[in-house]
Amino acid sequence: MRAAADRDRCAISGIGATEFSSDSGRSALSLAVEAALAAIADAGLAPADVDGIVRCDLDAVAHNDLAQALGLPDLTYWGTSGPGGAAPGGMIGQAVGAIRSGQANAVLAFRALNGRSGARFGRAGSGSGAGSGGGRRVGGGGKYDEFFAPYGLVAPGHLFSLLARRHMIEFGTSEEHLGHIALACRARANANPAAQMRDRPLTMEDYLAARMISSPLRLFDYCLETDGACAVVVTSRERAEDGPQPPALIRAVAQSAGPEPQVGFLYPTLMRKSLTTQTSKALAGTLYRRAGLGPGDVDVAQFYDCFTITVLLQLEDYGFCPKGEGGPFAASGAIDKGGSLPINTSGGHLSEGYLHGLNHVVEGVRQIRGTSTSQVPGAEVCLVTSGLPVTTSGLILRRP
Amino acid sequence: MRAAADRDRCAISGIGATEFSSDSGRSALSLAVEAALAAIADAGLAPADVDGIVRCDLDAVAHNDLAQALGLPDLTYWGTSGPGGAAPGGMIGQAVGAIRSGQANAVLAFRALNGRSGARFGRAGSGSGAGSGGGRRVGGGGKYDEFFAPYGLVAPGHLFSLLARRHMIEFGTSEEHLGHIALACRARANANPAAQMRDRPLTMEDYLAARMISSPLRLFDYCLETDGACAVVVTSRERAEDGPQPPALIRAVAQSAGPEPQVGFLYPTLMRKSLTTQTSKALAGTLYRRAGLGPGDVDVAQFYDCFTITVLLQLEDYGFCPKGEGGPFAASGAIDKGGSLPINTSGGHLSEGYLHGLNHVVEGVRQIRGTSTSQVPGAEVCLVTSGLPVTTSGLILRRP
Repeated sequence: MRAAADRDRCAISGIGATEFSSDSGRSALSLAVEAALAAIADAGLAPADVDGIVRCDLDAVAHNDLAQALGLPDLTYWGTSGPGGAAPGGMIGQAVGAIRSGQANAVLAFRALNGRSGARFGRAGSGSGAGSGGGRRVGGGGKYDEFFAPYGLVAPGHLFSLLARRHMIEFGTSEEHLGHIALACRARANANPAAQMRDRPLTMEDYLAARMISSPLRLFDYCLETDGACAVVVTSRERAEDGPQPPALIRAVAQSAGPEPQVGFLYPTLMRKSLTTQTSKALAGTLYRRAGLGPGDVDVAQFYDCFTITVLLQLEDYGFCPKGEGGPFAASGAIDKGGSLPINTSGGHLSEGYLHGLNHVVEGVRQIRGTSTSQVPGAEVCLVTSGLPVTTSGLILRRP
Repeated sequence: MRAAADRDRCAISGIGATEFSSDSGRSALSLAVEAALAAIADAGLAPADVDGIVRCDLDAVAHNDLAQALGLPDLTYWGTSGPGGAAPGGMIGQAVGAIRSGQANAVLAFRALNGRSGARFGRAGSGSGAGSGGGRRVGGGGKYDEFFAPYGLVAPGHLFSLLARRHMIEFGTSEEHLGHIALACRARANANPAAQMRDRPLTMEDYLAARMISSPLRLFDYCLETDGACAVVVTSRERAEDGPQPPALIRAVAQSAGPEPQVGFLYPTLMRKSLTTQTSKALAGTLYRRAGLGPGDVDVAQFYDCFTITVLLQLEDYGFCPKGEGGPFAASGAIDKGGSLPINTSGGHLSEGYLHGLNHVVEGVRQIRGTSTSQVPGAEVCLVTSGLPVTTSGLILRRP
């Protein structure tokens, strides 16, 4: 028997972000501090009110670095979630758990990185063949190298391209279908002055003319490389209601490793029974059950979009369209502004910036507050997903 | 205003441990699985009942490794705590938070390492000058090397020796005082068939005759190097009461970075205003407040003992004796079997094995159950501390 999960007992009461750029010229700690101070002020709090910090396992900024820089007098909760892009939902989950068990009152969740000017994600590791560069290994720390590296599968893009190709083979998905996802995100970025791609329109012709990187994935199927930071403050609902901003209630939060638990590595993606149904399917079940809601209740979604194909898979796995129909659904206009399920309304990782899932949480809060630059009128329920389909977490935010 | 923390709402319902040795001949994953299966069976559960896993940030075993090996069908919560030895209290805290917010029903906390035959702790890093070997850096990832390495401070023992020396200078603490702590732990190990030092008695003469490693710390002031694993299962109190074992109620759990937040690194220990009062002082305040208990209520304690000096500091910081009197208190017999505060009743890290704090949690549960090989008659409240004094976590276990 499962325990009943919390609903609407905690909220995100503050959000903050730095500029997203390709060359911050600053340390990740400096970026984290700026985003954290913005989020704390936005929540109507002072740094001294923060007694918890949760972080992503790949963040270069340790809890103590941030606590010291912010001058926190009494840090009594900290935790780490991951792996990598799967962190945000797990981080929010830890914050909710800490608050609900009386271990913290106000928990800061942050992600800071110089993803372009510093250690760059998404490149083959030097000598590890395991995934991203800069000493980070998204492929499993080299554990599976012998099965994949001989075939040239040494970077995330290589692996996700196989998912995309498989979807094309099984369901007739086209390159243009993926292109529609890239275009939808880019159009939202063009409306968002904070997006890295704010001034760069994208047409289907541009998309199809862009260079192929790992067939069938082209340049614009890949997310950006970004320097920047995001932060949010999680408190009890009651504290959030005392703050200056409308609370974004955390209706439900969940993590899932799926029925074949392979948390956190890209390579096992390819070992699953199906390449085209990922852990997002299992997560959707948990998240909807905990929330007492279904896909029909979701007004807007921020899907983790390290590549276009992950969005397409999630459209299916979260039940917004039948299996195999993610491509036509994306091409139908449903995911665009004014559609039935507008997605990635800040521009997402594909076109706003790659803050490893946490900018999706920030944008989700904006939708609940009604302050997005691509606001969905009357949005009350926002789905936010974190991480690759291979291992994943997510949350549902709700207007009070 | 602080939220009221949970009391007695969750419990440790199962414990497990492998053999502690100096050469397991097995992988850390194999050790973790053995300990986990033992803990799950001890809790009266099947692997399929486990839906959460929390781990130490230095563990070589990832969540997915363990979930796969155990065949968990639906892992819906995972998290990481640390740094290093500060993990156990944080891990239990995460488990409590996950359970109390409905994110998990049964959470497995584990620690597995080949601490002797594999990557050895406590050695200077190769080229990093930052602390422990094997690619692990307890000194702060090299961040502070320039301030310490030129003075030869490249391993944990070097740093803790300065704390010990400072305590001697300020308070007249003697080498024999530290020796009493080593002897107390060794005597408990001699009664514990599972302890690495079960067959090795230790006299004060032996202690003082042992080689000096980092003055004033000698061989027996250092903890052991251990191959092995421990695991515990955390559930709601109600579920634990349905199990075959008497529940060890989690009266309170806490983490603290202290008033000068420097989570997780050894080097900043030396930057604090006082070398002889550490974050354990701040943690004690939080833990006792949450528990509604004080040092006078504690029947038995399992103190994190990477070195003898950390026990001495904690005796003071947790309020069992006045500041500066840890040495005479240790020499008084208070910490021995039959004393007013028996400590480290399995032998501790100094003489049972170094499972990075988690074997202290397991032994704490044994005391609550009444099954320790150095059982404190009628023990109802057990204090368990995790981590160095520099950054720390802890819990108070209670008999129902």
